[in-house]
Amino acid sequence: MARIALDAMGGDHAPQATIAGALSALSELGQAHSIQLVGRSEVIRKHLDAGLAGEFDSMVNARERLEIIEAPDVITMTDKPAVVIRGKPKSSMMVGLTLQTTGKSDAFVSAGSTGAQMAASTVLFKLHPGLTRPAIGTILPTARKPVVMLDAGANVDCSPDELVQFARLGTVYAEDILVRSNPAVGLLSIGEEPEKGNAAVKEAHQLLKKADLNFVGNMEGRDVLQGENRRGPVDVVVCDGFVGNVLLKFYESVAPLMLAILKKKAGIDWRKIEPGLRQFDPSEVGGAPLLGVRGVSVICHGASSPRAIKNAIVVALRAVESQMTDHIGKRLMQGSGAGT
Amino acid sequence: MARIALDAMGGDHAPQATIAGALSALSELGQAHSIQLVGRSEVIRKHLDAGLAGEFDSMVNARERLEIIEAPDVITMTDKPAVVIRGKPKSSMMVGLTLQTTGKSDAFVSAGSTGAQMAASTVLFKLHPGLTRPAIGTILPTARKPVVMLDAGANVDCSPDELVQFARLGTVYAEDILVRSNPAVGLLSIGEEPEKGNAAVKEAHQLLKKADLNFVGNMEGRDVLQGENRRGPVDVVVCDGFVGNVLLKFYESVAPLMLAILKKKAGIDWRKIEPGLRQFDPSEVGGAPLLGVRGVSVICHGASSPRAIKNAIVVALRAVESQMTDHIGKRLMQGSGAGT
Repeated sequence: MARIALDAMGGDHAPQATIAGALSALSELGQAHSIQLVGRSEVIRKHLDAGLAGEFDSMVNARERLEIIEAPDVITMTDKPAVVIRGKPKSSMMVGLTLQTTGKSDAFVSAGSTGAQMAASTVLFKLHPGLTRPAIGTILPTARKPVVMLDAGANVDCSPDELVQFARLGTVYAEDILVRSNPAVGLLSIGEEPEKGNAAVKEAHQLLKKADLNFVGNMEGRDVLQGENRRGPVDVVVCDGFVGNVLLKFYESVAPLMLAILKKKAGIDWRKIEPGLRQFDPSEVGGAPLLGVRGVSVICHGASSPRAIKNAIVVALRAVESQMTDHIGKRLMQGSGAGT
Repeated sequence: MARIALDAMGGDHAPQATIAGALSALSELGQAHSIQLVGRSEVIRKHLDAGLAGEFDSMVNARERLEIIEAPDVITMTDKPAVVIRGKPKSSMMVGLTLQTTGKSDAFVSAGSTGAQMAASTVLFKLHPGLTRPAIGTILPTARKPVVMLDAGANVDCSPDELVQFARLGTVYAEDILVRSNPAVGLLSIGEEPEKGNAAVKEAHQLLKKADLNFVGNMEGRDVLQGENRRGPVDVVVCDGFVGNVLLKFYESVAPLMLAILKKKAGIDWRKIEPGLRQFDPSEVGGAPLLGVRGVSVICHGASSPRAIKNAIVVALRAVESQMTDHIGKRLMQGSGAGT
């Protein structure tokens, strides 16, 4: 039985998209699980009672499994993370996260300001010992199974040791969320040979070879969409947050643009093409858990659709049920014990 | 009147693809221009006389405009650049480049080993004063006009000054090859704000603001395919060679994969889709001039098709006709004079 708190006010299309996503998750998740909609309760109630009421009432026990948690403060896109933490304790972000630290919730999901969510999650949950910053693990669709890429933007100048930490965090993510056994870790670089790459990547390669991980060597940009390198399938793609963020945002732009171009072509039934291309839209996958914090905080794309929100809630539930946070703590302790 | 030397033996599909590309270029270029096919002459002659003879003979003055230059040494994919330079002076790469240093040719094009071509071009042509390494400028198709991205893999750990040099090199490239006036330079980063990015990018942003260039600020991964950032169209995308190489190889994998996926879907006429997707295949654009060397050396993708080879020859011709190498020298001198 898990209680998932959702930031009802966060995201470009909130609260419509967040509430619709919550209802979609409620109908899909097992009946033992509940959702806490955090935000301005009168706004949330208005949306629930109006457009969505019919859908809502058709679900079994929906009203029992949906709680509204009042959070009157509103975060704006220009609010700095420090302002959110110190000045807006009653925002949906802070209230939602605090539910977890006080034992009233098991996970938090938001499509609001990523910077504020990272900072607030780190301050409220604290980091596992040995970590200096959390990392963002993002699921990327590939021609094979999805992979988790990290870091996707939380850490820009990374040391070789930090890249190894990402490999550990990603391994647990792949085990617990993607349900892979002995996940294969690839290091993003500019050639398959160990001597290819920038200084940090070359040193990380040597450290990863010695670490207690299933390291399968470097992978190149062309391997990411394939979901494999020359040695076989990959589950975890390790890179610094600068490269990861550039690549993720580039990838997110591909399917929408291809679709727009093909829609303009005469004689193409783009409705048949759309599902084929949409499966390659990372923003539709939804839900990047902030890895390294001692709690569950799932970051969504600002432009999240109801489907993306629903998917993020599923990710949060898997993180809770698999006890991912505990596993990460154990994995990091193993790493420091092994001296890598 | 330009003489373009083509490495007939370089590339995964050589000499078939290189010779076919040369013939295609001969028929497309003005009759004043000639091509020098560099490689093992008996092999080249056999291919010309056999399968391609019919196509060849139908062209006006083709035989007068096509010269075969003997180069008996063969470069293997495992040859280190130093081995090529010192140990294989009669390879097609070394002979083709030397034609230019001895005044017998105006440009060199190869789909062979990129590392060997970079090293050999730098040794034989020398760099413009003030540069420590050359950069690879690659054309990327976008939803608008193509952009030039650099560096695409020659320089992995870049200083802020080197990123500014890439901006200068790319500006001349955009003027001379893409025929843009006052090219707009974007700096690849992880947010539009100047304070977003890794350490080198943040400092480069400040230097670029003061440089005598049309700097339009940061661009994000999602802006690349659009060919614009929030401030408008972009002509030059500046990044270090690690990020650039990862992004280029990722981009190159997109169109082929999308096509493969859509081909498998029932009810989709993929032949109608193919041209729409193929326009977003950077490997079909063909031809990345090595920027910063005092000569014209155009690098092609190893897997270049005849069309890509033909396109690269066109790029080489534009570089010659526009006197790009001289312009780069002048632009770099302006830069050092302005104290940036």
